[in-house]
Amino acid sequence: MKRYITSDALIAMDKQERVHLINSLGGFKSVSLVGTSDKNGNTNLGIFSSFFHIGAQPPLLGMIFRPSPPERDTLRNILDTGFYTVNHINEAIYKQAHQTSARYDATISEFDETGLNKEFKNNFFAPFVSESNIQLGVAFKEKIDIAINNTILLIGEIIQIYIPENSLSNDGFVDLELANTITCSGLDSYHKTSKLDRLSYAKPNKELTSIQ
Amino acid sequence: MKRYITSDALIAMDKQERVHLINSLGGFKSVSLVGTSDKNGNTNLGIFSSFFHIGAQPPLLGMIFRPSPPERDTLRNILDTGFYTVNHINEAIYKQAHQTSARYDATISEFDETGLNKEFKNNFFAPFVSESNIQLGVAFKEKIDIAINNTILLIGEIIQIYIPENSLSNDGFVDLELANTITCSGLDSYHKTSKLDRLSYAKPNKELTSIQ
Repeated sequence: MKRYITSDALIAMDKQERVHLINSLGGFKSVSLVGTSDKNGNTNLGIFSSFFHIGAQPPLLGMIFRPSPPERDTLRNILDTGFYTVNHINEAIYKQAHQTSARYDATISEFDETGLNKEFKNNFFAPFVSESNIQLGVAFKEKIDIAINNTILLIGEIIQIYIPENSLSNDGFVDLELANTITCSGLDSYHKTSKLDRLSYAKPNKELTSIQ
Repeated sequence: MKRYITSDALIAMDKQERVHLINSLGGFKSVSLVGTSDKNGNTNLGIFSSFFHIGAQPPLLGMIFRPSPPERDTLRNILDTGFYTVNHINEAIYKQAHQTSARYDATISEFDETGLNKEFKNNFFAPFVSESNIQLGVAFKEKIDIAINNTILLIGEIIQIYIPENSLSNDGFVDLELANTITCSGLDSYHKTSKLDRLSYAKPNKELTSIQ
């Protein structure tokens, strides 16, 4: 049996209940740790679940920032320095990853507080998360203000990629399960995945087949 | 052992290989069927994996459109009529859902071709997918052109929600696994999930606990 929730019911709902509900309805999400440094080299780490693919050529990744306190350090560092890392989360570190969402004082690094290790390599300005199996070095490209609710769309170009050798298929597909990448739903729920299938390119009147 | 892929290596890569790679790197994605009707009532159904949460008050959902042929019907119908449905995909229908990405002639409805059933209710203009357990009725709000690669960000407000009664928690969180919602990665890989944990709101110097 389905529950039908109208706009009016949504407006009448308790604020936190509505936040949980609407955050859940978008479906499973990409969740990663964003590593940054300020101009003085002080590092920052934050968990985000608003990543989305914008294009492959150039390789562009989008993310949404709310105008609220917990995310300010990350956004300011990106705008000040131009660089950030996106580090996939796996089963071994999701609790530490979630803990980065606590409102630490700006002088405190979430790396120190959570015990996650920072890794600097190949002259990339921002810190990677050493425990992360898939790591992306991203250069800031564009900031678009979304006037309707004062959020910000940030677009970055992926300029460095680190992935486990065995997770990369011949056709370019990355097996995220082999890399232990997890997903999240709502504000606080973390999930492992198990593959159902990879399906062939769809064409009219042609049976789909599995890609091995 | 990690593979390091530079910007130069990405540029030199075969186009399809790069498309698979970059589409994979964003992590697991929300994947849903978007139902629309044109002004004459002809229905259209397309699969998309670029949804993201923009805000809860008002309840806003974002999605990205590429300027390429397969998605034109959906985008045109949304801009012409102002309404669309977002229907979560479950294990029973993911092959039919994938098949909607075939380039059918504009006169053909993907509902007819895939055998998925349309459902009209509560005076909502666009068709829902009957087999979908979580269904959203969405009103078009704003179109933002992303100049950097000619893609389009479409923002809609969720105005009707249909969810299985048993998947809705007291605090508003929706258990997507109970609703059989699946996730996808890359262009063509579909995955079930299994919950690791729901974690409490993070605070400095406070141990995280599980939310039951």
